[in-house]
Amino acid sequence: MIPGEIRVASAKFRDDLLNDTLPFWLDRSIDREYGGYFTAFDRDGRRLETDKAVWFQGRFAWMLATIAETVEPRNYWLERAKHGIDFLQRYCVDRDGRYFFLVTRDGQPLRKRRYVFSECFAAMAYAAYGKSAGSEDHCQMAIELFRDLRSHLGPNSFLEPKVNPGVRPMKSLASPMILIGVAQEIRKATGLVECTEVIEQCIDEIRTDFVKGDLACVLENVGKQGEVIETFDGRLINPGHSIELAWFLMEEARQRDLPELTALGIQILDWSLKLGWDKQYGGLYYFRDCHGFPCAEYWHDMKFWWPHAEAIIATLLAWRLTGEERYWSWHHKIYSWSYQHFADPEFGEWFGYLHRDGTLSSTIKGNQWKGPFHLPRMQFYCWQLLEEVIHAQPV
Amino acid sequence: MIPGEIRVASAKFRDDLLNDTLPFWLDRSIDREYGGYFTAFDRDGRRLETDKAVWFQGRFAWMLATIAETVEPRNYWLERAKHGIDFLQRYCVDRDGRYFFLVTRDGQPLRKRRYVFSECFAAMAYAAYGKSAGSEDHCQMAIELFRDLRSHLGPNSFLEPKVNPGVRPMKSLASPMILIGVAQEIRKATGLVECTEVIEQCIDEIRTDFVKGDLACVLENVGKQGEVIETFDGRLINPGHSIELAWFLMEEARQRDLPELTALGIQILDWSLKLGWDKQYGGLYYFRDCHGFPCAEYWHDMKFWWPHAEAIIATLLAWRLTGEERYWSWHHKIYSWSYQHFADPEFGEWFGYLHRDGTLSSTIKGNQWKGPFHLPRMQFYCWQLLEEVIHAQPV
Repeated sequence: MIPGEIRVASAKFRDDLLNDTLPFWLDRSIDREYGGYFTAFDRDGRRLETDKAVWFQGRFAWMLATIAETVEPRNYWLERAKHGIDFLQRYCVDRDGRYFFLVTRDGQPLRKRRYVFSECFAAMAYAAYGKSAGSEDHCQMAIELFRDLRSHLGPNSFLEPKVNPGVRPMKSLASPMILIGVAQEIRKATGLVECTEVIEQCIDEIRTDFVKGDLACVLENVGKQGEVIETFDGRLINPGHSIELAWFLMEEARQRDLPELTALGIQILDWSLKLGWDKQYGGLYYFRDCHGFPCAEYWHDMKFWWPHAEAIIATLLAWRLTGEERYWSWHHKIYSWSYQHFADPEFGEWFGYLHRDGTLSSTIKGNQWKGPFHLPRMQFYCWQLLEEVIHAQPV
Repeated sequence: MIPGEIRVASAKFRDDLLNDTLPFWLDRSIDREYGGYFTAFDRDGRRLETDKAVWFQGRFAWMLATIAETVEPRNYWLERAKHGIDFLQRYCVDRDGRYFFLVTRDGQPLRKRRYVFSECFAAMAYAAYGKSAGSEDHCQMAIELFRDLRSHLGPNSFLEPKVNPGVRPMKSLASPMILIGVAQEIRKATGLVECTEVIEQCIDEIRTDFVKGDLACVLENVGKQGEVIETFDGRLINPGHSIELAWFLMEEARQRDLPELTALGIQILDWSLKLGWDKQYGGLYYFRDCHGFPCAEYWHDMKFWWPHAEAIIATLLAWRLTGEERYWSWHHKIYSWSYQHFADPEFGEWFGYLHRDGTLSSTIKGNQWKGPFHLPRMQFYCWQLLEEVIHAQPV
């Protein structure tokens, strides 16, 4: 690629973020009456329900507070981030300190789940807001929640497992992975020293127990000592999730100049693109089996928006860190496929769910799992990374 | 249709059941070492895991015991039914009397769920086996479990709901519906008088609270008094489930000569075929929204095997009860589409999961949700119904 191409790409990410993705949500997501954000919308922005997904109170607040660090007018973004943060604090925490998963429009609790992802996204939001707004209180809340999360997600976690641990002890990649993501945010906002320690523990656990060199993949679920379990769950690979892990690791490597960690991220990216890319129709499969057996989940071969957003980041970062042209090619290939298939030029934002062959399965733009996170995060991250390239010495 | 056509159709159902579907499972499902049935198989019968789905210990035992009533050699079927029943009793019941959802090959508990479907299928199995084998003990076990289920699934059920009942009280069609199915089996096996009372209560509840004339559909989830709840869950229609309900009602109407109930079943069938049939590609959608809004579930437009099996039964029974040619046409249309798309002439049985356009999504023949139940039940039911037509007075 030539410098001009990089400038065009950067401007496109910026433009898509600020003039397409964010306006789609900002125009209709903010509930001025009860606080918080709506997320359930059809393609044209028609609201499909008013229940509030707690993940997105944190995720969108995090995104807006992060943008406020970089994009003027700062107060515009901060005010909108605070809108979600206040709703989180006021309505989304149960008496035991655990967060809900779903609340009504006016903040009454509907569902609480075993997982602590709501808490993770809340911690990220508090951290980013604390930094952007210079609020010591919010930084402190983020740190407290992070310490609480360590006990839920760390090696001696007391999170209630789905499968009887007395009979089949298992652990999931999601736990150390999200903890890396949260720790990176807390460290960025507060400089908390223990974050790096937590990140290193998580990376060690992933490298030792989930990364399988002989199978050339990262498994989603393994035994307590990393044993491969010969069941549907035990053989499960989620290429989009592995690719997200790959760039979490490369980002850590970039921040701390750790070439071995870059190599691990690159390795995981290579495996996941090989396993995950659909050679017949293009796009990334949702699930694969580590032996090539069929998966048990119905939607295993569907193309979801978020693995593509993660792959656009990971390939760009791999190109940035290695300088290898093939990652720029992959980046371009995944970007093009995604914009051809997920983007909705008529009403903005991306569709979320395609059939294997790339045809549209659902016109939905948001529900409890799809909202303003993976897409705007990708656009923001890639924009910032390309700006860094533009302003750095020639690669 | 002409009598010859009916004879051919009947022979085909019998042949498919006895020479295709059942051999697929009997050849590889029975675990002679640890007891019980395996269900996780790829298309060619390769076993994909050894965990045992508790639903299918009951469902397959029920199917085999039911066949033993009709097909010789009786002991062959009874022995194989007993195989699952013994495993159920020995390994699948927790100390509190509740049944597990998944156990290991050797019967150690892996998962227990909020729902009581494992218990329902166990009760059906005990009843059918009790009748076929003349075992008073098994009939008694069925009755006890059925009484226990009434308290879980009846109007004042104490089943823990997914959504906070203090904030949004809801109830699901699945509860009264499965109770009808279980009660019909217990009544057939034991003549227990209270079964009819339970069935009538369930039908009343369904008619009053779940059947929505103004929306021309049956809703899966409603408020405690049948209120329509304007959320994804509250608008959800499962056409295959509605069609299964339709034939449960018509079957009750047929057994007890209740023309009004036939009319209700027919009404529900008509609505569901209209809502559920994909005019572009054929086949039945998995989910629909009662206002035509998009559904939140990813697999909403996939074609699953079981709604088609239920629709083949329901349309045949509707034809039998009304004599209307259009139901024979529907029956033929759904039967043909299903055999063209789900059947696997090479290795037998049906595939389970197709994309909307009818192409194969997964080669899997069995997992925790697909096993020897909907397909062989359909083949058995339709065979028996057509035999009744052949031997009855002309319709």
